[in-house]
Amino acid sequence: MHAATKIVIITERSILDGVAEILEEHGATGYTYTAAGGKGARGKRRIDRTAQVSSLRENVKIEAIVPDHDVAERITEAVVAAYFDDYSGITYVVPVEILRPGKFQV
Amino acid sequence: MHAATKIVIITERSILDGVAEILEEHGATGYTYTAAGGKGARGKRRIDRTAQVSSLRENVKIEAIVPDHDVAERITEAVVAAYFDDYSGITYVVPVEILRPGKFQV
Amino acid sequence: MHAATKIVIITERSILDGVAEILEEHGATGYTYTAAGGKGARGKRRIDRTAQVSSLRENVKIEAIVPDHDVAERITEAVVAAYFDDYSGITYVVPVEILRPGKFQV
Repeated sequence: MHAATKIVIITERSILDGVAEILEEHGATGYTYTAAGGKGARGKRRIDRTAQVSSLRENVKIEAIVPDHDVAERITEAVVAAYFDDYSGITYVVPVEILRPGKFQV
Repeated sequence: MHAATKIVIITERSILDGVAEILEEHGATGYTYTAAGGKGARGKRRIDRTAQVSSLRENVKIEAIVPDHDVAERITEAVVAAYFDDYSGITYVVPVEILRPGKFQV
Repeated sequence: MHAATKIVIITERSILDGVAEILEEHGATGYTYTAAGGKGARGKRRIDRTAQVSSLRENVKIEAIVPDHDVAERITEAVVAAYFDDYSGITYVVPVEILRPGKFQV
């Protein structure tokens, strides 16, 4: 086992690709996302599985394992600078332990 | 960064709105949910994406950032009292660090 | 409250049932999964909600609460031995606190 940091970014679906690029630019070897609904300061959002057009408005929870807090902070700063004036979002980190060091992330 | 507590409630889809109300009553500024399948003491549930009627029977994983453990415990007590005699569910907390204090949760 | 360990396994959708069996063999009383997309060493995967055939190729994030790290490690070893030569995946653990000890997991 070895300690690592999981960064979680919950934000709007439409900027998933942009956030993924920032993750990769900062050395994340992979990321995982799940469709999310929820409620924040900009009102309720629901998971919409039918309308193509509204899939752009749903939220995503994006997760990536990064080496440490410093990397997580730099990613956060980059995401905030690029998107969070115009898009809603939250980022937080969770300390995790990787059970399979050396392998890639799905 | 500042320390916070993530409360996670995995329960039946049909009580999402009620749990969300409890979260808001206890001061959570937002919440996020994802559709979940799984297996517990009441048998296997799968994510059903087609039938409208069965979407009421699927599970949801509901997450919210709250200030501390005390708030998480009060939310748990309220959810248990309101629902967990009749609905299956589990709640747990994860210590997290918020990278963007002061902003709302999606 | 009591301390426990959450094991997270992010892997290919097609081996969900096999991973679930391993979890149960190791005493996990339940598990939760969510459909996930993402990118790892084997390229980008997206959540596909329409085509039946491609649902076999999407990823899942599988989570279970287990008593401690030792159990999580044994589960990881079993999953790696059974599947990770042929399927991509990552496993990690997160320390959690259960707010409702004694109840089953959804």
